[in-house]
Amino acid sequence: MTETLQTLLAPIAPQLAEVDKLFHLELGTDLACVNTLVKHVSRFRGKMLRPTLVLLSGQAAGGLRQEHVTIATVVEMVHMATLVHDDVLDEAELRRRGATINHLRGNEAAVLLGDYLISHSYHLCSSLQSQLASRTIARTTNQVCEGELLQIDNRNNYDLSQQTYIEIIKRKTAVLCATCCYLGGVLAGATESVARDLESYGERIGMAFQIQDDILDIVGDPSAVGKTLGIDVEKGKMTLPMIHFLRTAPSEHRMLLRSLLASRDGDKTEKIRNLILPSGSIDYARQFAGELIAGAKASLQSLPLNPARQTLETMADFVIDRPM
Amino acid sequence: MTETLQTLLAPIAPQLAEVDKLFHLELGTDLACVNTLVKHVSRFRGKMLRPTLVLLSGQAAGGLRQEHVTIATVVEMVHMATLVHDDVLDEAELRRRGATINHLRGNEAAVLLGDYLISHSYHLCSSLQSQLASRTIARTTNQVCEGELLQIDNRNNYDLSQQTYIEIIKRKTAVLCATCCYLGGVLAGATESVARDLESYGERIGMAFQIQDDILDIVGDPSAVGKTLGIDVEKGKMTLPMIHFLRTAPSEHRMLLRSLLASRDGDKTEKIRNLILPSGSIDYARQFAGELIAGAKASLQSLPLNPARQTLETMADFVIDRPM
Repeated sequence: MTETLQTLLAPIAPQLAEVDKLFHLELGTDLACVNTLVKHVSRFRGKMLRPTLVLLSGQAAGGLRQEHVTIATVVEMVHMATLVHDDVLDEAELRRRGATINHLRGNEAAVLLGDYLISHSYHLCSSLQSQLASRTIARTTNQVCEGELLQIDNRNNYDLSQQTYIEIIKRKTAVLCATCCYLGGVLAGATESVARDLESYGERIGMAFQIQDDILDIVGDPSAVGKTLGIDVEKGKMTLPMIHFLRTAPSEHRMLLRSLLASRDGDKTEKIRNLILPSGSIDYARQFAGELIAGAKASLQSLPLNPARQTLETMADFVIDRPM
Repeated sequence: MTETLQTLLAPIAPQLAEVDKLFHLELGTDLACVNTLVKHVSRFRGKMLRPTLVLLSGQAAGGLRQEHVTIATVVEMVHMATLVHDDVLDEAELRRRGATINHLRGNEAAVLLGDYLISHSYHLCSSLQSQLASRTIARTTNQVCEGELLQIDNRNNYDLSQQTYIEIIKRKTAVLCATCCYLGGVLAGATESVARDLESYGERIGMAFQIQDDILDIVGDPSAVGKTLGIDVEKGKMTLPMIHFLRTAPSEHRMLLRSLLASRDGDKTEKIRNLILPSGSIDYARQFAGELIAGAKASLQSLPLNPARQTLETMADFVIDRPM
């Protein structure tokens, strides 16, 4: 995280520390074997993007209450659960520079630990007075699952349309960010209209975040990004640069990409990278993400001009400026 | 299911049909690929034990309301989610026996479909006015995950104590049955004391059910039971008959069981069966389950004597009288 952003986040640092405490309090048990797994998974925790969205949205829309810390912890648990299950699906070995749970303890522990995290997220959420948050979080996780299911249904589908790709990333990634901002606003007493604007901000930066992730999977430097790259290619997941390439590149290049995608060549990730890099397809995806970020910032116009709103704007830029 | 029991369940047949309808209504989406998977999973649905417990407990404790149908559907979804994820854990076996390419795709879809089911169960639950059900269901699923995690942590632990075994089956199986009965009572307006008695009934039949399952895994006839047997042995899961055997059998028999459990012998299930069958360990487990059933029935004494209470008593007997 850049130093600037860290300074900007200082006003919510106490609440982020509370989220961290509540996260461990909620997940603690009388079983040593469970506590060990939870401790391991905590190491994957990174920039707490989703809790930050809840807290900043709340602050921008009227001020923080205790419920914000609860919901911020809930969304962090939901996010961790999806990470743990994603690693099972991706058969990934490395996450945030540490071994993944499935790699270390087997797929079974990873499946169950993901279940444990999601169960506790609902448990914590149901401690709030109103059902609204529980209902919203559950609707959100319904959509996350739909997005993931739609994605595996389109694995190795080299004809995947941009429209379906957008539908996938909206559900699997953007909806959770949208919910963070929406609930952050609602819990601060925002009007429905302002809360929906925050939701729209969250959805757009969520989509841009995923597109940036997809770009990094092709062009990123593993040591800077800190996780296994080239997984999309390995798992037959079509991403925006590839979809654009298969629509616009010279036909012999398109055919080459298709045959590389289908091959079992050990160097295929490298070869695909070298094929796509000189084309305009990475730039296309970057521009697409940039427009989403501009739209996200525009969504904030109905909010009062205050430091939290400005930080949300800076965060939007950060999403597509992450290290390569 | 015996004909007698089916006749006894006739009074809740309309509500069970409503559960079936609500199950499909809640899980329907705009995505064809998701609907196909849901249709597939519906075929696994069997005797609807858990919805039946909700409905009978409600009827025994004061009468059914619309909320009973909702909660009965919720617990059926929770149960289906655990089945689907259990299959993922067991599919590792199938891979060893040389499953096809289909396997990988099946595994991923199963993880996500389980997540989808659990997410919808919370979503449906959060449609109820009060948070009590959401809170109770989430606490229950927390414990189910703990039980499963404790179980895999003790895989191939031939020194597993009976106490830890009981802790495992209580959490992974019995707690959900207990919650079915508890919420069935609460939603019918039962006093806390009566609802707790129903909970105790549910916990005991849940444990007896699991012990009976464990017995069948060793001595059952696959064609009568209708599923693959010997899985506990294959997966290094220690069950009550084995735990008793390793505590009480002559020392050379104990050593033989240990070496069989550790072996990769293709006939090991058959050999273990032949070793345990003549001992008193199956009878010990049967008696243990029988005492739980007697305790379960005794828990019902605080309820008014009505047909639903009598059906709960008959169901308790049925749990340990299932076909061999």
